[in-house]
Amino acid sequence: MKKLDFYFDFASPNAYFGYQVLKDFPEKYNCEIKFTPVLLGGIFKSTNNKPPMEQFFGVLNKNEYQSLEIERFVERHKLTKFKMNPHFPVITLQMMRGAVAADMDGYLEDYIEKVLVHMWEEPKKMDDPEVIKVAFEESGLNADKLMNQMQDPDVKAKLISNTEEAVKRGLFGIPTFFLDDEMYFGKDTIWMIEEILSSS
Amino acid sequence: MKKLDFYFDFASPNAYFGYQVLKDFPEKYNCEIKFTPVLLGGIFKSTNNKPPMEQFFGVLNKNEYQSLEIERFVERHKLTKFKMNPHFPVITLQMMRGAVAADMDGYLEDYIEKVLVHMWEEPKKMDDPEVIKVAFEESGLNADKLMNQMQDPDVKAKLISNTEEAVKRGLFGIPTFFLDDEMYFGKDTIWMIEEILSSS
Repeated sequence: MKKLDFYFDFASPNAYFGYQVLKDFPEKYNCEIKFTPVLLGGIFKSTNNKPPMEQFFGVLNKNEYQSLEIERFVERHKLTKFKMNPHFPVITLQMMRGAVAADMDGYLEDYIEKVLVHMWEEPKKMDDPEVIKVAFEESGLNADKLMNQMQDPDVKAKLISNTEEAVKRGLFGIPTFFLDDEMYFGKDTIWMIEEILSSS
Repeated sequence: MKKLDFYFDFASPNAYFGYQVLKDFPEKYNCEIKFTPVLLGGIFKSTNNKPPMEQFFGVLNKNEYQSLEIERFVERHKLTKFKMNPHFPVITLQMMRGAVAADMDGYLEDYIEKVLVHMWEEPKKMDDPEVIKVAFEESGLNADKLMNQMQDPDVKAKLISNTEEAVKRGLFGIPTFFLDDEMYFGKDTIWMIEEILSSS
């Protein structure tokens, strides 16, 4: 059985896109999938990389093309619920610590599914603790417990070590996928992963 | 009949990759293809964009991934003759003016085919006039005529206007394709173009 790794941070629309397409792969292609929460800011710091919005700041035509690419991806995969987050960029530290806690408690995928709604479907300012709390409660997540866990040194340390290990494995951004240890960066590589999975 | 536009500059391996894959499309998919020589340096200047090697200078893991991507593309399309040009980056101004001249004289595709060999198969320092001359002669191109044409004000002006019009159309880098006026940037969008062509 093929193994698919998915490194993510809620920070980028591309994490939403990646998740929405890949989540069906285990059933569709009989593969295993493992989600690993990492901190995109930490990856950028360790690799000396920059967010695309900074990298391409002031570059003519680039934003328009990026919107077109998003449109095409949305249409292809029928991700009609997607909405750009008006508070972008949202600092995802708390949400990502929550993801580590959810992972430790065995419900990471459920957590991802729910938090993505608040980031990229009914977008909110998800770096405001009050907003996070209300959103979590709305989704039936244990907000009080999760917000405590976000301060847990073990959770904090695990997010850091996830991020460090990701960089050691070759990451410089997200979403990044590994299919049986071969690295694929960005949502626009998903078709290759799908091609391999569907033919094996 | 679908119309495919291909904007190129010999400067990047991705122009080589794009050309090698797209050149067969007219026969394979019964479409028209139009090649437009532009100056990548001019596009970068007008759009405030930077070459990837500058953009991602010093970014950990990025080069390794880029090599992996090239490997994958080469393997998929069996482009086994590709060799990285050891003189990279090569200033392509003369070669691109030559492309405009070849276009005016009606043999642009033959010119592209031949020059790509000297840039990315048997790579040479193709910004050295002596090297260009020998390479052109080796390929059966009229070196003396072409080298004169490179100094022709009409040729120079046409390369500039090609580049300006490309930026107006939305370009910020190469290779860029338009399929019936919808823009696709980079070799990694070719699969989408192929999907549309093969289903229409």
